[in-house]
Amino acid sequence: MSGQVYGRVALIGLGLIASSMFWAMKRAGLAGEVTGYARSAETRATARRIGLCDRVCDSAREAVQDADLVVLCVPVGAMGPVMEDIAPVLKTGATVSDVGSVKRHVIEAVQPHLPEGVHFVPAHPLAGTEHSGPESGFAELFDNRWSLLVPVEGTDPEATARLRALWEGMGANVDEMDADHHDLVLAVTSHTPHLIAYTMVGVADDLRRVTDSEVIKYSAAGFRDFTRIAASDPTMWRDVFLTNKDATLEILGRFTEELFALQRAIRTGDGAHLHDYFTRTRAIRRSIIEAGQDTDAPDFGRGQKK
Amino acid sequence: MSGQVYGRVALIGLGLIASSMFWAMKRAGLAGEVTGYARSAETRATARRIGLCDRVCDSAREAVQDADLVVLCVPVGAMGPVMEDIAPVLKTGATVSDVGSVKRHVIEAVQPHLPEGVHFVPAHPLAGTEHSGPESGFAELFDNRWSLLVPVEGTDPEATARLRALWEGMGANVDEMDADHHDLVLAVTSHTPHLIAYTMVGVADDLRRVTDSEVIKYSAAGFRDFTRIAASDPTMWRDVFLTNKDATLEILGRFTEELFALQRAIRTGDGAHLHDYFTRTRAIRRSIIEAGQDTDAPDFGRGQKK
Repeated sequence: MSGQVYGRVALIGLGLIASSMFWAMKRAGLAGEVTGYARSAETRATARRIGLCDRVCDSAREAVQDADLVVLCVPVGAMGPVMEDIAPVLKTGATVSDVGSVKRHVIEAVQPHLPEGVHFVPAHPLAGTEHSGPESGFAELFDNRWSLLVPVEGTDPEATARLRALWEGMGANVDEMDADHHDLVLAVTSHTPHLIAYTMVGVADDLRRVTDSEVIKYSAAGFRDFTRIAASDPTMWRDVFLTNKDATLEILGRFTEELFALQRAIRTGDGAHLHDYFTRTRAIRRSIIEAGQDTDAPDFGRGQKK
Repeated sequence: MSGQVYGRVALIGLGLIASSMFWAMKRAGLAGEVTGYARSAETRATARRIGLCDRVCDSAREAVQDADLVVLCVPVGAMGPVMEDIAPVLKTGATVSDVGSVKRHVIEAVQPHLPEGVHFVPAHPLAGTEHSGPESGFAELFDNRWSLLVPVEGTDPEATARLRALWEGMGANVDEMDADHHDLVLAVTSHTPHLIAYTMVGVADDLRRVTDSEVIKYSAAGFRDFTRIAASDPTMWRDVFLTNKDATLEILGRFTEELFALQRAIRTGDGAHLHDYFTRTRAIRRSIIEAGQDTDAPDFGRGQKK
């Protein structure tokens, strides 16, 4: 889990994921030097103040100079323009990767700008918190979480293997997946649930008959977990929905179909339908705990989140 | 936070809430003797084995004999029949209460059976976990959580004050609220979010193109929290939706209206609408943290739940 994997790594964009990558790389000594760049001068100043990156640069081009690995950690919608900007100065033999939540769109936006002799290995770490910005990162973010590599046709297996070693060194479990399948799986496990949580929190905020203070004061089980999800970075999520449009709309269609069936069961008083449905979903939870993706501690609705 | 409030308390139904009440009452010495009854012989045997209740009885009538406080801890749909059964043997001057998640229906089901000289003070502790059964309770469940008292017309203020003292002694903050308002607030903060989580987990389970194992394996941020919510007790939740039908259907109508607006924004690529919406919901999360209803720790999507 340690030993240098890349001589120089450049992080473009210095939010939650990039800052966690920096601390995770430092923890295991995975990179010789890590440079960083953020579009906002304020973010760059914060990064310098807290020692995030060995060197914070004032342009993306400066940051990627001589880098063996360049990781695009910007919102999905900004990946293309950033790649276009840095392409002319990339070192031959370098690898470009990213951490975007959507993969087909990132590949289509980045690949046309890829110079001859530069490898491209898209990636997506399935880890995050509802916080964002350069100060939100921590070395343990990827520990025992999945990081999915989505190599494109013609990607050098050696470049993929090296990036895998980096992610494993940062504590992650690594799998490889096709881009379209990735986008569908994530639409189910992450994108649609986020949209639904955002919607429910918005509805609560709109209701005039239930005052804000009551919704907040009594936000125990259920709603409170939704607000946590719905506190995630707005720019990142806007881009996710706009760039994984087809899969999200497909899953949303399935969701409303099922919701209407449950709504009809409530209206008609069909208790058996409801009970069967809720029994089935309870079993899925057990599978997730058995798969080691969450603990069985009864913290739901409790203040035990440390 | 201590001192005896009732001489004898009877708990009817021995699930998560009743068992937590028992341990919380013991912790603070709030009751002289606590009797208990559960319909299932297996539950009664478990209760006897783990020392849940000072005395486990084989009938509800036996358990409520000479009780100063009887708390109905059964699913909302079972409240009426249980009350009808125990009514003839209730002590004059006793108080009947409950812990149901819906209040208007419980009042309508229980009140007709209330004998002369017996007080009725409905209550609802906003606390729980996704676990159920007699072994799932713990003394701290209500600490710093809200318990809502919903006194009906003509309830003796003295009986209400005494029940308030019990809940405060068990660690809860107590508020009073009108039954219809309670049911609407809970439809927003708890009932509809639960239905939505159940639906989303069911959709994921149905999808044949995304194998079960993938949904489970990669269930990081978002979906995993939904599965926790969707693992709650099926019988309890069936009864909640059947008995808080009007408020749930009203909030569901609002929800689908908003969801369709966001769906249209995704389809038409209206990024500004999405970004504005997500920025607004993020602010609500901050209010909840400031109100002390959750911590700001970045555990979302992480395995840090203890």
